[in-house]
Amino acid sequence: MALTTRLTQRLGLARPVVLAPMAFAAGGRLAAAVSAAGGLGLVGAGYGDDRAWLDAQFDAAHGEAVGCGFITWSLQRTPEMLDHALARGPRAVLLSFGDPRPFAARVRDAGVPLLCQVQTRGDALLALEAGADVIVAQGAEAGGHGDRRATFTLVPEIADLLADRSPQTLLCAAGGVADGRGLAAALVLGADGVLVGSRLWATVEADVPDGLQAAALAADGDATIRSSVMDIARGREWPERFTARVLRNRFTERWHGREDDLRRAGEEAGRDWDEGWRAGDPQRANTFVGEGVGLIAAVEPAADVIARMTGEAAALLGRG
Amino acid sequence: MALTTRLTQRLGLARPVVLAPMAFAAGGRLAAAVSAAGGLGLVGAGYGDDRAWLDAQFDAAHGEAVGCGFITWSLQRTPEMLDHALARGPRAVLLSFGDPRPFAARVRDAGVPLLCQVQTRGDALLALEAGADVIVAQGAEAGGHGDRRATFTLVPEIADLLADRSPQTLLCAAGGVADGRGLAAALVLGADGVLVGSRLWATVEADVPDGLQAAALAADGDATIRSSVMDIARGREWPERFTARVLRNRFTERWHGREDDLRRAGEEAGRDWDEGWRAGDPQRANTFVGEGVGLIAAVEPAADVIARMTGEAAALLGRG
Ligand SMILES: Cc1cc2nc3c(=O)[nH]c(=O)nc-3n(C[C@H](O)[C@H](O)[C@H](O)COP(=O)(O)O)c2cc1C
Ligand SMILES: Cc1cc2nc3c(=O)[nH]c(=O)nc-3n(C[C@H](O)[C@H](O)[C@H](O)COP(=O)(O)O)c2cc1C
Repeated sequence: MALTTRLTQRLGLARPVVLAPMAFAAGGRLAAAVSAAGGLGLVGAGYGDDRAWLDAQFDAAHGEAVGCGFITWSLQRTPEMLDHALARGPRAVLLSFGDPRPFAARVRDAGVPLLCQVQTRGDALLALEAGADVIVAQGAEAGGHGDRRATFTLVPEIADLLADRSPQTLLCAAGGVADGRGLAAALVLGADGVLVGSRLWATVEADVPDGLQAAALAADGDATIRSSVMDIARGREWPERFTARVLRNRFTERWHGREDDLRRAGEEAGRDWDEGWRAGDPQRANTFVGEGVGLIAAVEPAADVIARMTGEAAALLGRG
Repeated sequence: MALTTRLTQRLGLARPVVLAPMAFAAGGRLAAAVSAAGGLGLVGAGYGDDRAWLDAQFDAAHGEAVGCGFITWSLQRTPEMLDHALARGPRAVLLSFGDPRPFAARVRDAGVPLLCQVQTRGDALLALEAGADVIVAQGAEAGGHGDRRATFTLVPEIADLLADRSPQTLLCAAGGVADGRGLAAALVLGADGVLVGSRLWATVEADVPDGLQAAALAADGDATIRSSVMDIARGREWPERFTARVLRNRFTERWHGREDDLRRAGEEAGRDWDEGWRAGDPQRANTFVGEGVGLIAAVEPAADVIARMTGEAAALLGRG
């Protein structure tokens, strides 16, 4: 069943679903699967510090048209990575977590659609100044990094802002969209489509260790926490406003709320986290997923997830 | 335009909208206005420590059928207030913030519908044990007290839980519902209706000082914060998991994150907050509203808010 929106029309998609450019998890294989299923696949270029990996992901997409997304504050340290990505002819570029204005002109000049993921109304104003083609309004229920606002209120508030100031700018909702109900809700809240992370993280094409996917399947939505302790352990210097949502585990139980102690514990705590991450151990390292984890029942092919999501949404809205 | 759901059918309503029993703000006048508009009006019996006030509110409803809501952990200290309320023949009783099981039998024995507002999936299991007729799933974007989960994910997760374990139990969404988009989104997420606080707080019938309503109209959705400092200042001993969402102001800027200092500052800080509250001063005391405040453009009669909300939702869903 199709679900036509301004997003599908403008970006030439069959389905109004964008893959979140999840650092480490969204590689070329997952991005290609999402594009092949009619959505927009975005590779998670993450911190923008690994050119060889990014090249390998575009290669792994095997000619399927995919884009990529960067963590903006980190891209500031390696701005040449944006040019490198643009040289690969990406289908779109997404910028998130920081001021997109310094990078926008280069994306636009390359004729590539610019998506800006924002966490507040204030961020949306910057994205408008940057000339974003699509604003992605991300609520704090999202997996991975984010800020404080909620999807349920941020989406209609930014829809009103766009209707007022820039009606041609498109809007996607991110944070908690895990099935057709979420997609339908996003559309009636005023979005033209959705950006999906956690639900597509739990697919066979995602680059995720089995142990972490198993931990996510076993968890309900009460089991997550937003925290900075993972970033402290990894030595990632995120701006203070951005915490990450993960499954609570032994590590967060021990350190969350004791950030200064963790900084003092230093390398040892970090080394254990890193080892746990490499081993795919959900107690030593953290599983990055959102509250929508409570809606995920199985690891499936991305195409099945997307077809069911859009089919359910079309049925709920009496369309299609 | 009507919008028929299981909630309207079961409770005999014309519209699937429940007034949040907002302490101090939802008196008999507002509750009666909501019931007269086809919704379910609930008086905010709050901490359950003011019998004369509660009597006055039932009187002020002038025969319009209204119910009331209690803060459960506080009701434990004055359980006789529940009997007192039941003797007034309430249309429904809502319990929120604490274990409802000790009170449920008395409500049921009185033949009064029991609504339990829950903040997590774990709470919902207790509400089911209590035999709630309606579970209200409250997200953290809500105004006033609450916990951490988000409306967008909590509602479908509890819908799934009910479908599995207790299909006859009804579900309402609370937190961020401020217009027809929010009502429509709640319904597609799996709810049978909504419980609305902040939007109905900004009405002519609410017991709210003009200065606080003006502060809310001027605010956008980025302007709120969840904090405990208001409760520390007022000497209200809330269980730690429940913070309250309010407009950020001079008081929260000064004390949020410095809770221990505030406790030490003691009576003086509390006295200033109380004076500000009595004076309706939005810088000295806090305005209790949710993130949906960014969707509120005017103080209007409750009937207009409810008619527009249901009309818009019906149109979005292609019903009515
Ligand atoms: C494992 C994981 C990694 C993520 N990494 C990034 C990232 O590198 N860049 C980015 O913009 N967003 C990242 N996000 C956030 C997503 O862009 C998106 O906002 C989020 O996944 C949406 O919420 P959901 O997880 O409930 O679908 C990540 C999310 C997850 C779950
Ligand atoms: C001013 C105010 C006071 C509140 N007081 C109570 C209360 O006493 N008892 C209660 O159960 N909920 C209370 N709430 C929370 C509401 O029940 C409800 O969950 C919330 O208002 C829904 O979110 P919304 O404000 O975005 O509509 C209050 C909310 C507000 C805004």
